[in-house]
Amino acid sequence: MPLRDHPRVVMGHGGGGAMSAELVEHIFAPAFGGPVLAALGDSAAVTLGGVRLAFSTDSYVVRPLFFPGGSIGDLAVNGTVNDLAMSGATAAYLSVGFILEEGVETSVVGRVAEALGAAARAAGVEVATGDTKVVEAGHGDGIYLNTAGIGLIPAGVDLRPQRARPGDVVIVSGPIGLHGVAVLSVREGLEFGVGIESDCAPLGGLVQAILAVTPDLHVLRDPTRGGVGAALNEIAAAAGVGVVVEERRVPVPPQVAGACAMLGLDPLYVANEGKLVAFVPRVHAEAVLDAMRAHPLGADAAIIGACVAEHPGMVVARTALGGTRVVDLPVGEQLPRIC
Amino acid sequence: MPLRDHPRVVMGHGGGGAMSAELVEHIFAPAFGGPVLAALGDSAAVTLGGVRLAFSTDSYVVRPLFFPGGSIGDLAVNGTVNDLAMSGATAAYLSVGFILEEGVETSVVGRVAEALGAAARAAGVEVATGDTKVVEAGHGDGIYLNTAGIGLIPAGVDLRPQRARPGDVVIVSGPIGLHGVAVLSVREGLEFGVGIESDCAPLGGLVQAILAVTPDLHVLRDPTRGGVGAALNEIAAAAGVGVVVEERRVPVPPQVAGACAMLGLDPLYVANEGKLVAFVPRVHAEAVLDAMRAHPLGADAAIIGACVAEHPGMVVARTALGGTRVVDLPVGEQLPRIC
Repeated sequence: MPLRDHPRVVMGHGGGGAMSAELVEHIFAPAFGGPVLAALGDSAAVTLGGVRLAFSTDSYVVRPLFFPGGSIGDLAVNGTVNDLAMSGATAAYLSVGFILEEGVETSVVGRVAEALGAAARAAGVEVATGDTKVVEAGHGDGIYLNTAGIGLIPAGVDLRPQRARPGDVVIVSGPIGLHGVAVLSVREGLEFGVGIESDCAPLGGLVQAILAVTPDLHVLRDPTRGGVGAALNEIAAAAGVGVVVEERRVPVPPQVAGACAMLGLDPLYVANEGKLVAFVPRVHAEAVLDAMRAHPLGADAAIIGACVAEHPGMVVARTALGGTRVVDLPVGEQLPRIC
Repeated sequence: MPLRDHPRVVMGHGGGGAMSAELVEHIFAPAFGGPVLAALGDSAAVTLGGVRLAFSTDSYVVRPLFFPGGSIGDLAVNGTVNDLAMSGATAAYLSVGFILEEGVETSVVGRVAEALGAAARAAGVEVATGDTKVVEAGHGDGIYLNTAGIGLIPAGVDLRPQRARPGDVVIVSGPIGLHGVAVLSVREGLEFGVGIESDCAPLGGLVQAILAVTPDLHVLRDPTRGGVGAALNEIAAAAGVGVVVEERRVPVPPQVAGACAMLGLDPLYVANEGKLVAFVPRVHAEAVLDAMRAHPLGADAAIIGACVAEHPGMVVARTALGGTRVVDLPVGEQLPRIC
């Protein structure tokens, strides 16, 4: 049956916010069932041959294919590697599916493949298997990619949104909003010279550095589509806890702040591709923060808030002026086709 | 760099024939590298935590989304389940990626998801993780899907195209060409009432029935894009052996033969989605054939030829008239977007 409020798919259904969740809740979950899918993390934890694996997939439809700081090939590697890393796993093998549009230059396919291969080597993951399909001109957009990945989850590590607890400290690994603004900065009709590059990067090493300090973490999440705001909302809803964010402690680069002001965007909802949000028991917070800051990808890590027992399922920001505002789950996507 | 003969992608690059191989050889393999990808089977055999896994992916762009005998949802499950089965593995977990086109009815998304879920239950595989992206109207075709799958490879089983040996008997599990003709029969402008249904089905059970007779098989391959002709050519090339096919022993249903005659197609190159080709040491051939015939999906299994030391890399058909002809690797794809 169709969605009651949406007989047809709109762009917002791909935004990673409330409309995406509606698709999952009303269409995919009933159709597919299963306890694993119901956990709804960035990646699934599955057991096979007595071994605990993380398994994840994402498709990539970013426009344009190349943007400051990366390309669809980099995204396709790091996006999936990072989803695996959020369950503590080190990505071991990737699959890659290309959907090519008839007429795209084979040199462009080659550049994307080379970027993908280089990103895989940088992340220490092997491209194990692949597939290519071609669709007629006018039924694609140059190149769409899908990757799926698998990796081992270390013993004793159990990272899930459901594990957030009141008293946890909320840490973000660095400045937010760079990926979304970098892609926007080169979109047709939206050019504005902000000199910003995507933060697209593989987070496996940073996660291992954190786990070396303590395996007693509760949640890791990479705030991609929907940004930090969507990630915190999903965690709050999954664990039935409240989250309080101190706005003045959220690291927003001046160019991101400027671009967001100009375009009417909230940096909390802008996509990141090389950042993570950690929910850490207070007793480990300083040690985890130190470990993150000692890693190149966590040099500007900051405590941005805390998990509380009040207002379960709700994220509240304390503004710089001392007020509070609710940070809702975004409905659709303020920036379509950002990944 | 671009492909010398093809500065732009054409439909044939997605056909699973020589042009697809050119993309892999000149663009993907150099970019991705790696010993696993180089094996180029239907699925990759990888080791993780001491466990041997099959890992495979395919994207699905079939047009129309629903066809006699199945849908893109059935294909997305069975295509990947079957790729895993060809290495002897039973599919355990699937990932699913949806690329939706803005404007597609959510009821259609629901029907595809339900078909996918039902096919997964029938194949005994769990949908563990998923992703949805949306692209603007005019940049997709309703629904594109990707699935990736993982499954355990049983101890002692080593199925690879490279293992074909002279003396092997070539068995096909049943009548060929049904999927391709069924999809064609409902394509715009190509309607012809042949009353044929796709053979789309999960082959894991049939493969386990074969392995119960003997693990000493050499190659299993599901002849999808490019049909039996492409599958045999890939095996001949990978193993450096020749293959001889007895045309009169190839099970071609009359409606498939009729449709192919009308459209100028060769049934050997038409896609199947519920068939396998097995290369079996002669000593086990009768036992394997009996086991296949005892299974509903192998009831019409037949020995269609043999592997020979002569003409390495080449597939030759003995015609009903006693002549011979070379069965080349197809260049592109006679039927685009069949899967």
